Amino acid sequence: MDRTCVKNNRNKTKSGENGEKRDGTFHLQNPHLERMDEDVLYHLGLNTTSHNFVEMFGDVKFVCMGGTANRMETFAYYLLDVLGLKLPTGTTLIDISRNSHRYSMYKVGPVLSISHGMGVPSIGILLHEIMKLLKYAKVKDPVLFRIGTCGGIGVEGGTIVISEDAVDGLGSSYFQVPVLGKIVRRPAVFDKELIEELKDCVDPKDSYKTVTGITLCADDFYEGQGRLDGAFCDYTEAEKMEYLHKLKDQGVVNFEMEALVFAALTHHAGIRAADVCVACLDRLKGDQVNTPKDVLYEWQKRPQKLVASYIKKQLEKCECS
Amino acid sequence: MDRTCVKNNRNKTKSGENGEKRDGTFHLQNPHLERMDEDVLYHLGLNTTSHNFVEMFGDVKFVCMGGTANRMETFAYYLLDVLGLKLPTGTTLIDISRNSHRYSMYKVGPVLSISHGMGVPSIGILLHEIMKLLKYAKVKDPVLFRIGTCGGIGVEGGTIVISEDAVDGLGSSYFQVPVLGKIVRRPAVFDKELIEELKDCVDPKDSYKTVTGITLCADDFYEGQGRLDGAFCDYTEAEKMEYLHKLKDQGVVNFEMEALVFAALTHHAGIRAADVCVACLDRLKGDQVNTPKDVLYEWQKRPQKLVASYIKKQLEKCECS
Repeated sequence: MDRTCVKNNRNKTKSGENGEKRDGTFHLQNPHLERMDEDVLYHLGLNTTSHNFVEMFGDVKFVCMGGTANRMETFAYYLLDVLGLKLPTGTTLIDISRNSHRYSMYKVGPVLSISHGMGVPSIGILLHEIMKLLKYAKVKDPVLFRIGTCGGIGVEGGTIVISEDAVDGLGSSYFQVPVLGKIVRRPAVFDKELIEELKDCVDPKDSYKTVTGITLCADDFYEGQGRLDGAFCDYTEAEKMEYLHKLKDQGVVNFEMEALVFAALTHHAGIRAADVCVACLDRLKGDQVNTPKDVLYEWQKRPQKLVASYIKKQLEKCECS
Repeated sequence: MDRTCVKNNRNKTKSGENGEKRDGTFHLQNPHLERMDEDVLYHLGLNTTSHNFVEMFGDVKFVCMGGTANRMETFAYYLLDVLGLKLPTGTTLIDISRNSHRYSMYKVGPVLSISHGMGVPSIGILLHEIMKLLKYAKVKDPVLFRIGTCGGIGVEGGTIVISEDAVDGLGSSYFQVPVLGKIVRRPAVFDKELIEELKDCVDPKDSYKTVTGITLCADDFYEGQGRLDGAFCDYTEAEKMEYLHKLKDQGVVNFEMEALVFAALTHHAGIRAADVCVACLDRLKGDQVNTPKDVLYEWQKRPQKLVASYIKKQLEKCECS
């Protein structure tokens, strides 16, 4: 398999804010990294002295992230099956980051499957460290996916939602973070072409819909998403419904808690990324996630199926070319 | 043991914003909760229909939270030892929230030990659900602790830092979250008396210091804490050092990523809480967490020892009275 073939797609898209080197590598704008003798990726439990990143991760083409360690382990085994890969006799997958106790990371051929926890800060730390890992491993044109769960807005439970854009709870499409005491704003932009490529992978025989739209990235699950069932609530059901309908009218199709920083940091590095979630419920119909466990479990596989199908298609293209 | 005896301390402190009922129960200001037939605490894997909260959690007096599941399991077994509790023959502790795959929760006598993940949104979800759990279990006057890790500012690695106040990356001591499209601000206030009680539990024979001061609660580990070793960095080492020294002059002693929402939501409910962290390094001396694993592991036990000592003392008071 040609390790560089996936970059052909990449070259068709515009480069990130930092530009992109012509050889297909992405660029992390941090001059200090070049001067470090060692880099400890603390939350991944890896460091550049004791681990050979090129050897361990040089063949990576895709990084898939999701909230729980359990889901990402399941996805890793699912990928083994979909990609037709076999582990050597007497071996099994192992959590590469098990010593960090922060994230869980599995590697299946050219794919990393990693848990990111909940919320912008948690996935933010992972993005910093995984982008450095990819740089040190000399990976070219990686594609990043978030495989998540969300609350739909006018979108039925079980529907797949692909984020076209991400906004915060005030409607801004910038990821804003205080740096040295001043706010730094970075545009949260997803790769439009990648969204189209994903849509092309939708199986017409699916019993559920796949939709696209604006994602509201909240910093809270309860009040921050207009729920009535948190520890605190100072608004009425009517005010909540007015808010949700207003969002719907603005094109917002789902709530989740990571899209903004995921879009902003990948775009800043010139890395293609997409956020693919399944709706656990339609928030126009309620707040509580009380769908039976086995149904939720089946729903969670839907974004996995779509992303795995995309990955398989890309890898087959490489093999044919 | 008298289940209500710990409230004597509570009565000496002023009540939270929502006031406090005279019988010692705290108050969650959400009229909608009373009208719900069932409450699914989704991220804890518990619900009020299939679980008897009073029976399961009615004796809880203390809730201890920390970042990783591993640390909180270790703390649970440590507490068993410190409190001189014995599990029935043939039993072991089990993660009560194992089905949620989000947090890990252990119960040791009157103490819950729970992982909260990383960052404000992650601990925020847990706080909403744990405060509802305590309410449904009819727990009186619970005391909450965060047992964390942090980056010291002019504070040596291995030092315990108890947060007196919490500020965000712009210096505000309010937790701000968009609710229905508008910012809601809640003061982040820790219980001053609890801090003094903790200081009284410091073992003078300890080989390390225990200090108090202002905690900067960041939304990012890298740029948000002025590190030079993230995927991106647009400032110089001199600018970083100027920023860190400015923080030090303002009384900021450490960086972590949860204090603001932890202080704000507990204060809002009228629940006493303290944030006790160990410094993994002194940020005035560097950015990388490259202390050997076994040393870090020993350091992480220090806040556990202090909090366990406080809990033991309080429980002994109850037994004597």
